[in-house]
Amino acid sequence: MSLLTGNSHSLSEEEIDEYSDGTVKLRNSNIELMDQDILYHLALGSESHDLQEMFGEVKFVCMGGTPKRMENFAHFIMDEIGYKLPAGTQLQDISAYSYRYSMYKVGPVLCVSHGMGTPSVSILMHEMIKLMYHAKCMDPIFIRIGTCGGIGVEGGTVIITEDALDGQLRNSHEFTILGETVHRPAKLDKKLARELKSLASSDDPYDTIIGKTLCTNDFYEGQGRLDGAFCEFSESDKMTYLEKLRDHGVVNIEMESTIFAALTHHAGIKAAVVCVALLNRLNGDQVNAPKEVMHEWQQRPQILVSRYIRKVLAQHGQLKSLFGHQGSIKSPRRFKLVQQESQAHE
Amino acid sequence: MSLLTGNSHSLSEEEIDEYSDGTVKLRNSNIELMDQDILYHLALGSESHDLQEMFGEVKFVCMGGTPKRMENFAHFIMDEIGYKLPAGTQLQDISAYSYRYSMYKVGPVLCVSHGMGTPSVSILMHEMIKLMYHAKCMDPIFIRIGTCGGIGVEGGTVIITEDALDGQLRNSHEFTILGETVHRPAKLDKKLARELKSLASSDDPYDTIIGKTLCTNDFYEGQGRLDGAFCEFSESDKMTYLEKLRDHGVVNIEMESTIFAALTHHAGIKAAVVCVALLNRLNGDQVNAPKEVMHEWQQRPQILVSRYIRKVLAQHGQLKSLFGHQGSIKSPRRFKLVQQESQAHE
Repeated sequence: MSLLTGNSHSLSEEEIDEYSDGTVKLRNSNIELMDQDILYHLALGSESHDLQEMFGEVKFVCMGGTPKRMENFAHFIMDEIGYKLPAGTQLQDISAYSYRYSMYKVGPVLCVSHGMGTPSVSILMHEMIKLMYHAKCMDPIFIRIGTCGGIGVEGGTVIITEDALDGQLRNSHEFTILGETVHRPAKLDKKLARELKSLASSDDPYDTIIGKTLCTNDFYEGQGRLDGAFCEFSESDKMTYLEKLRDHGVVNIEMESTIFAALTHHAGIKAAVVCVALLNRLNGDQVNAPKEVMHEWQQRPQILVSRYIRKVLAQHGQLKSLFGHQGSIKSPRRFKLVQQESQAHE
Repeated sequence: MSLLTGNSHSLSEEEIDEYSDGTVKLRNSNIELMDQDILYHLALGSESHDLQEMFGEVKFVCMGGTPKRMENFAHFIMDEIGYKLPAGTQLQDISAYSYRYSMYKVGPVLCVSHGMGTPSVSILMHEMIKLMYHAKCMDPIFIRIGTCGGIGVEGGTVIITEDALDGQLRNSHEFTILGETVHRPAKLDKKLARELKSLASSDDPYDTIIGKTLCTNDFYEGQGRLDGAFCEFSESDKMTYLEKLRDHGVVNIEMESTIFAALTHHAGIKAAVVCVALLNRLNGDQVNAPKEVMHEWQQRPQILVSRYIRKVLAQHGQLKSLFGHQGSIKSPRRFKLVQQESQAHE
C-alpha cells in the first residue's frame, strides 16, 4: 500500500499487482543473476552507475513524445514545485548518449521522452521499470502527457484516459512473445484518473474530461485520416467509423496508451494518461490552430499534472522543504541590470 | 521505367506499382484537392515551402533510427560523393522544428531519422512519400540503414533483407484501417538487394549476406530476450524459438522492416534494408562489444550504401560533376595553421 497516495485507499482490481513495501518488483528473476544490467536505450547501467543514489528519490515519472516537450516540462515543474538547482548548474539530458530518448530529473520528478508509437514506448517502459527496480524507488507513479485527436470534443480539451483500447476496441495490448499472441489488460489507475480530474479548476478556460482512448499504430490510415500518402476509403466511411468510436465512448485517439497501460499494470505501477486534443476529428483531419494557440494547449496537461504533483508533495510536507532551498536570484530587476552591464564589457 | 537504374531491367512482380514517367504517384486523390498539405512531422508544407525547388533533385532517401546516425551519414556521404557546400554554410536539420524526425540533404541524397518501431516509421513514410510527390522526384530509391540482432551470424555482419517477416513469420505488414485488418505485402526490390550484395568487396573484413528479416514490436519479450522487465519463458523456450527462426531462413531481427517494405511497395518505390548485426542472438541477449567496435560496425551498412550511391551517380555522370565543385580547403596543413593562429588572437 502506498504511503504517498494515502491510507484510505482500498484494494481494487487494478491494484492487485502492487507489493507491500512499495518498491517495484521485477517479474524477471534473470536480472538479479546478471553481472550488469545495461539499460541501452537510457545510456545507464546497474554497475556503471549508482542508480539508487541517482534515482532513489523519484516519485513521479512523466513521459511524453518529444525531447523538447519533456525538457520544457522539466523546467516548468521545477518552477511549480520550487525546486532549486545548485548555483552554477543546469539540467542535463541524462540519456543524451543513447541518442534515443531524453531524460531530465528535477528532484522527485523524472521527465522522459518516449518517441512515437507503442514499440518505442515498449522499449522505454522495460528500461524505466528496471530503472525503478535498481534504484529502489518507492511507489513511483507514471504519467503520460501527450497530444491527441479529439472525437466530439473541441481542440484544447484536456482528456484523462479511463480505458485504453486497441484498434479492435479491446481494453488490452496485444504482444507477440516467442511467436505466440498474448493479450495483457491495458488498465490504468481509476482512482488516480479521478484525482487528476478533481484538480481541474472551474476557472480553467477549457474542459477536462475522462473517457476512453483509442490507441492506433498509425497517424494517417490508422486514424481514418483522408490526407495520408494512401487513402482507400471515402469520407463517408471515415465519418461512419469515427461516429462508431464516439458511440463506443471513445473521446480521443493517440498512439501510445495501450502499451503504457499494459506494462505499468503488469509491473504493479499506478499510471495515468493525460492528453490535450489538438482538433475535433469529427470536423477534419489537418491541425490548423495557430502555433501560439497550440503551444498554450500543450501546456494544459502539464498544468494538471503539476497540480497533482504539488498536491502529493504538499501532503507529505515535501513541497515546503523544496521551497526552503535558497534561490540564486534575489532581485530579478537587479539580476537583469548586472547581466546587461556584463554584456557591455565583452 | 527508371532511367537511373538502367534499361536492361525487366518488369517483375515487385515493380508493378511503378509509373512510366518515374515520378511518385499518390494513391490518394484527396491530396490534390487540398488547399495546403501540411507534413506536420517534417515541419514542411506544400504551399509554405517550394518543395520542388528544395527536393526535386533527390534520388536517394536514406533512413535510420537516430538523428545522430543520420547526421553522421550525411557528413559521410558528402565526402563519399564529393559534394561541396557553398562557402560559409553547414548542413542544417530541415525538420528541426518538428522535434520528431531529423532530415539532412546532401545534393541528391536525403538522410532522415525514423525513430524506433513500425508506427514511428509509418508516420514518416506517409510524409516522405507525399514529399516525393510534391517535389516531383524522379525514381527515388529508399534505403533503410539500421542495426539488428543476428541469428546465427556474428556481430559485425552486414545483412541485406530479402523478405521482411512479421511476428507470425508472414511476409506482410498488418494494418488496422477503420477497424478492419488489412495485410499488405512487405516486399523489397530483389534486384536492388542483389546489386547491393554485389558491391560487398572481398577485401571487407566482414561478411555481407542476404536473408530474411524478422520485424518485431518490442526489443525485449518481442525478440525473446531474457533481460527485459518481464520474462515469462525459459532460456530453453527462447533457444527453441530462435532456432525455429533460423530454420525458417531468418538471419536477423529488427523493428522497422515490414512497414518500410509494405509502404514503399504500395507506393511503387524501390527499396532496400541494410543492417549490421550487433550480436549473434544464439549466443546471448546483451550487446557487449566495445564502443569503438560498435562504432566501426555501424559504419559498414553506410559504406555499402555509399558504394551503391557512388556507382549510380557515376553511371549517370553525376559523380564527376559533383567532384567538379571547388572545395574550400586547398591545403589541410595550412588550414590548420591558420586556425591555430586565429585562436591565439582571441
